[in-house]
Amino acid sequence: MAKAVVFQNPACGEEPVFADHDAPGQNAKRALDDAHMAVEHHIRDAGAVEQRTDKRQQNHIVAANQLLHRHTFRVPASILPLLPALRAAYGPRPAKMERPLGVVVPLEEPRREGAGIQALSDLVAADLERVNALILSRAGSEVQMIPEVANHLISSGGKRLRPLLTLAAAKLVGYGGEGHVRLAAAVEFMHTATLLHDDVVDESEMRRGKLAPRMMWGNQASVLVGDFLLGQAFKMMVEVGSLPCLDILSTAATVIAEGEVMQLAAAKNIATTEDEYLAVIRAKTAALFAAACEVGPALVQRPKAEQAACRSYGANLGIAFQLVDDALDYGGREAKLGKKVGDDLREGKITLPVIFAVRRGTPGEREFWKRTLEAGEIDDSSLEIAIDLLVRHGAIDETLARARHYGAIARDALALFPDSSPKTAMLDVVDFVTSRAH
Amino acid sequence: MAKAVVFQNPACGEEPVFADHDAPGQNAKRALDDAHMAVEHHIRDAGAVEQRTDKRQQNHIVAANQLLHRHTFRVPASILPLLPALRAAYGPRPAKMERPLGVVVPLEEPRREGAGIQALSDLVAADLERVNALILSRAGSEVQMIPEVANHLISSGGKRLRPLLTLAAAKLVGYGGEGHVRLAAAVEFMHTATLLHDDVVDESEMRRGKLAPRMMWGNQASVLVGDFLLGQAFKMMVEVGSLPCLDILSTAATVIAEGEVMQLAAAKNIATTEDEYLAVIRAKTAALFAAACEVGPALVQRPKAEQAACRSYGANLGIAFQLVDDALDYGGREAKLGKKVGDDLREGKITLPVIFAVRRGTPGEREFWKRTLEAGEIDDSSLEIAIDLLVRHGAIDETLARARHYGAIARDALALFPDSSPKTAMLDVVDFVTSRAH
Repeated sequence: MAKAVVFQNPACGEEPVFADHDAPGQNAKRALDDAHMAVEHHIRDAGAVEQRTDKRQQNHIVAANQLLHRHTFRVPASILPLLPALRAAYGPRPAKMERPLGVVVPLEEPRREGAGIQALSDLVAADLERVNALILSRAGSEVQMIPEVANHLISSGGKRLRPLLTLAAAKLVGYGGEGHVRLAAAVEFMHTATLLHDDVVDESEMRRGKLAPRMMWGNQASVLVGDFLLGQAFKMMVEVGSLPCLDILSTAATVIAEGEVMQLAAAKNIATTEDEYLAVIRAKTAALFAAACEVGPALVQRPKAEQAACRSYGANLGIAFQLVDDALDYGGREAKLGKKVGDDLREGKITLPVIFAVRRGTPGEREFWKRTLEAGEIDDSSLEIAIDLLVRHGAIDETLARARHYGAIARDALALFPDSSPKTAMLDVVDFVTSRAH
Repeated sequence: MAKAVVFQNPACGEEPVFADHDAPGQNAKRALDDAHMAVEHHIRDAGAVEQRTDKRQQNHIVAANQLLHRHTFRVPASILPLLPALRAAYGPRPAKMERPLGVVVPLEEPRREGAGIQALSDLVAADLERVNALILSRAGSEVQMIPEVANHLISSGGKRLRPLLTLAAAKLVGYGGEGHVRLAAAVEFMHTATLLHDDVVDESEMRRGKLAPRMMWGNQASVLVGDFLLGQAFKMMVEVGSLPCLDILSTAATVIAEGEVMQLAAAKNIATTEDEYLAVIRAKTAALFAAACEVGPALVQRPKAEQAACRSYGANLGIAFQLVDDALDYGGREAKLGKKVGDDLREGKITLPVIFAVRRGTPGEREFWKRTLEAGEIDDSSLEIAIDLLVRHGAIDETLARARHYGAIARDALALFPDSSPKTAMLDVVDFVTSRAH
């Protein structure tokens, strides 16, 4: 989201202003989403409140009496030069405007374009090299098929995002030991094991732009090599010898599997709600991000609040990551995505874009989704129709907006840490994750 | 094996005697196998040495000069009444007999018929009840499908052999804490997870006399619920908080997966050797038995030798268990076996009975095995032909003899413990495992 600004206090003598510099798609609803709150403003955007009062988001709604209204409310000087352009973009103030109320969300530094995860990789380069060496050596086995299958995935240009986060969070809290390297490798192994099992469950044909291992060595090898990597992950954790870290990661392993089963149970059911879907991705994706970010801080004797902050950063970053992934599945380029566009559709997977399109669709459109996703009646035109419906209902944009919302929470979570290069790098990761769609 | 007696010292004034009270099939080779050693005795049984000099078993061969020859060697009084019958059974001494040499293996107590695992269950009844309660509660999840799938297996009358062993070994070394209950439940979960994944890998239709879970909930659910149980197993271990136990069990998890992949790589290859096959079952089956028996002792500050003894007991019992299972697959009754007779044949699985039959078979017979197991050309008569070949070459009996051999090692391993009710119960388990075939 970068910067969301909402000025709605007439005492300022200004029109209501909704600004999201992550345009296009900039509108009241978007800005409000990004600010994690709802503001009643029926004329500008009748849909905003309705959307924000989804059951899931009730706790994010800010009532009028909770807001600070001050007649002397001032527009920050840094924003003033932008106002004429914003006013021009939004046109004149409506004639019969209700008394508005408003809030200002944190004004952040302009996004540093292209920061991505390079700063993070550079920052922990030495550690990352050791993690990579450890990963390669621990994927080894005298049983030839194991390193073959494992390395197919491990060496296929994955971003190592999760182990990078483990290293960064350890640095953020000033950990000076050696354990984070093994824990980072363990996290990557848990992730790789999940990929191997997922591909079997989803019957996927591609993974990271290459054939999925199950297409080359069979489902059996994928199941078993996944089990092997999971075992190795636990062995590495045990070597580090931290029971709190073992607790965090073994809990994550359980929760991830729970999330995958939840997804399986929800599969091919277009009545799945946003709530239910979020519960799935909190478990299947966000739990490992959260654990990856928490284990470093758990190794040091720092205040519990720092550990909780890293966990929250990871969990919300993970949700954002998954939502962008879901959006990309209907719009990304295959090379970038590492899997085929439309895979989710072919697998009958209900993701957030589909949930939006079903909810906003006509009865006839719902029939299409039912046929396609529940009955699996797919032909050459299905993907095109699906994308058309998703675009018509703003479902992709909306999903990306949701992703930015969780990205914002992830950023906020790090606020209790003083500025530092690991903190900056971790904030950049949020941008990287939420801007993958561009 | 129960009792194997080999008297071959002519100074005793007796014929060579080979006695195995586990008749039928009693012969020199059998008795020697059971005694874990080879004795050169070309006239009686030309095959014995040859067989025992398989690469794998070289370390078990006892050369003549290593044996204690005493002219005053005495037949134990308790055996004397048996000798006339034995002599009658074996017929007269061969005319031109080479100078024999011999050894006496431990004469054990007569097997207590029907002892089975009841004594063990009774001994740890209170703990076992807590294990069962824990298993049920930890297989629970708000994700409905998880307890459904898990309980289908967990409540299907499994013998709980592995957790029973964990409880027994903890009692054997005088452990007085609470950790063994959680560890026993963790061991059972690791086992159940393996079954779930195995069924997917093997495409099995039955498990424990019921439909395999994958037939009811699909392969996906089996993979994922297996992952969930593995996660819960680790969570329980972490709760116990013993890093040595975590080390033992996480290593076992890795080795088990390695064994399964080894088996997969060896599948449908009738050139698999006994060596290779033993490496597979040491990993896929014996590793968990070994870990199950080792974790109890690892919880207490007893001499390392006791821990190693329990580990050895478990590992060898596990090998025996698997070999009997392999034999039963070609001869057990389905209800007893909990799977269909001939499943291994249908799945192209190379087990020890087949390895024997291939090695001893004619070129034509090898063609049959190649067609059936490698090419998967199976018809209604295949199982009958296979069983006929196995019986003709004594492959089932031989496999069971091997099982008794490992059973004997398991018994020997416990020798350093003074007599106690847990020890007796654990010895009974060896009988139970090796006599399942009767």
